[in-house]
Amino acid sequence: MANYKLVLCYDGTRYSGWQKQGNTSNTIQEKLEALLSRLLEQPVELSGSGRTDAGVHARMQVCSFHAKTPIEPRELLGLLRRYLPEDIGAYSLELAPPRFHARLSCREKTYVYSIWNSELPNVFERRYMLAFPGELDIKAMERGAQLLCGEHDFTSFCANRHMKKSAVRNIKEIRFKKEGERLSIILRGNGFLYNMVRIIVGTLLEIGTGVRSFETIPEILLAKDRSKAGPTAAAHGLCLYDVGYD
Amino acid sequence: MANYKLVLCYDGTRYSGWQKQGNTSNTIQEKLEALLSRLLEQPVELSGSGRTDAGVHARMQVCSFHAKTPIEPRELLGLLRRYLPEDIGAYSLELAPPRFHARLSCREKTYVYSIWNSELPNVFERRYMLAFPGELDIKAMERGAQLLCGEHDFTSFCANRHMKKSAVRNIKEIRFKKEGERLSIILRGNGFLYNMVRIIVGTLLEIGTGVRSFETIPEILLAKDRSKAGPTAAAHGLCLYDVGYD
Repeated sequence: MANYKLVLCYDGTRYSGWQKQGNTSNTIQEKLEALLSRLLEQPVELSGSGRTDAGVHARMQVCSFHAKTPIEPRELLGLLRRYLPEDIGAYSLELAPPRFHARLSCREKTYVYSIWNSELPNVFERRYMLAFPGELDIKAMERGAQLLCGEHDFTSFCANRHMKKSAVRNIKEIRFKKEGERLSIILRGNGFLYNMVRIIVGTLLEIGTGVRSFETIPEILLAKDRSKAGPTAAAHGLCLYDVGYD
Repeated sequence: MANYKLVLCYDGTRYSGWQKQGNTSNTIQEKLEALLSRLLEQPVELSGSGRTDAGVHARMQVCSFHAKTPIEPRELLGLLRRYLPEDIGAYSLELAPPRFHARLSCREKTYVYSIWNSELPNVFERRYMLAFPGELDIKAMERGAQLLCGEHDFTSFCANRHMKKSAVRNIKEIRFKKEGERLSIILRGNGFLYNMVRIIVGTLLEIGTGVRSFETIPEILLAKDRSKAGPTAAAHGLCLYDVGYD
């Protein structure tokens, strides 16, 4: 039994997210499992480092799988590059230690939310950035972001109402990068709940436009109530940027 | 009669090029003329700085048109931004001197041909770059490019066999920019013939891969025969980057 670590990138525009679902076949996991099963002539089950929502992109998604009859990673990588659709790319493939598991071994994730903060058009990156022409008070957004950093119960920033597991996560850093009209919000943490990054960004945008004060963040966290936070920012601005392992 | 100068950008992926044609309606010129005629409630005829082929992009395309009943440029620009499809963007709109004509007044054009020179995938820019994984001798390509600069009869680099007008053009500069895996070929000249940039790039790629020597360029020019030059490089790597006026 060989264990493989596969690093992928994808343009999530036309997919229903990473995770396979009962009734659809338009997820990235399903596309990959079907292709790997065909290439390896055996049923392959993939574990991803985590889910990405419908329409969310990945510059780096890590997944792992086992194969009964091993194959040279270099050869399989070549086949993947040849047969994957043009919006899913295979960066690298290598043999991993037997206990490596893309989700369970994952220690840290970095997401980038990209905003095109201008009334000028940006036709070439329109699929990967939220167009937001209004003025933004980035200083206030940064102060709000600081209050979200550290270990908190993020129930208010989670779209899953029936979550039974712990909603405690540790956000290690939220960083803002402004280059011309381009605003990137970079979030690094030990894990993120369902829709958590997008709800954080939606809330920070409300702070940036003056709809709410950055000082409301502690109340939102304490309330453990999704309705207290801001709206869920559009999926297409979000990109899983990096996945960290020990 | 007010004369307007409109600066556009577009993702050419799903269009049959700039220029309107008899039997289709899927050109950028037609989309724009239809929208402007509707907004201004009068037939509008657009002149573009030049054609772009099917699938070619524009970071900056300039066009001009007349309107009998003038309208505030700011107001019309707002309407254009609201009603244009998301792959056509309106950068700016201003009143132009009466004799300004986007094509006839044009003095210089800059095109950029973008190559992703790597076997790694680039899913996010796949629509705007030619994926070319093989090794390229950029030094040789630069020497070939030098021999194309200046005033020449570019008949061998023109796809239109029945051209009656002069094929003499002046290429002022061909510059190579390598940033990591990204190779940009920047071509600046007083005008370019039908498919000329793409045939030049196809020929330079043959030089870069050793299929032909850079020293064959003078012979190709002298032959005035399209079949002596290299193949036409794919449209999606090409972008009209800048248009210059006096």
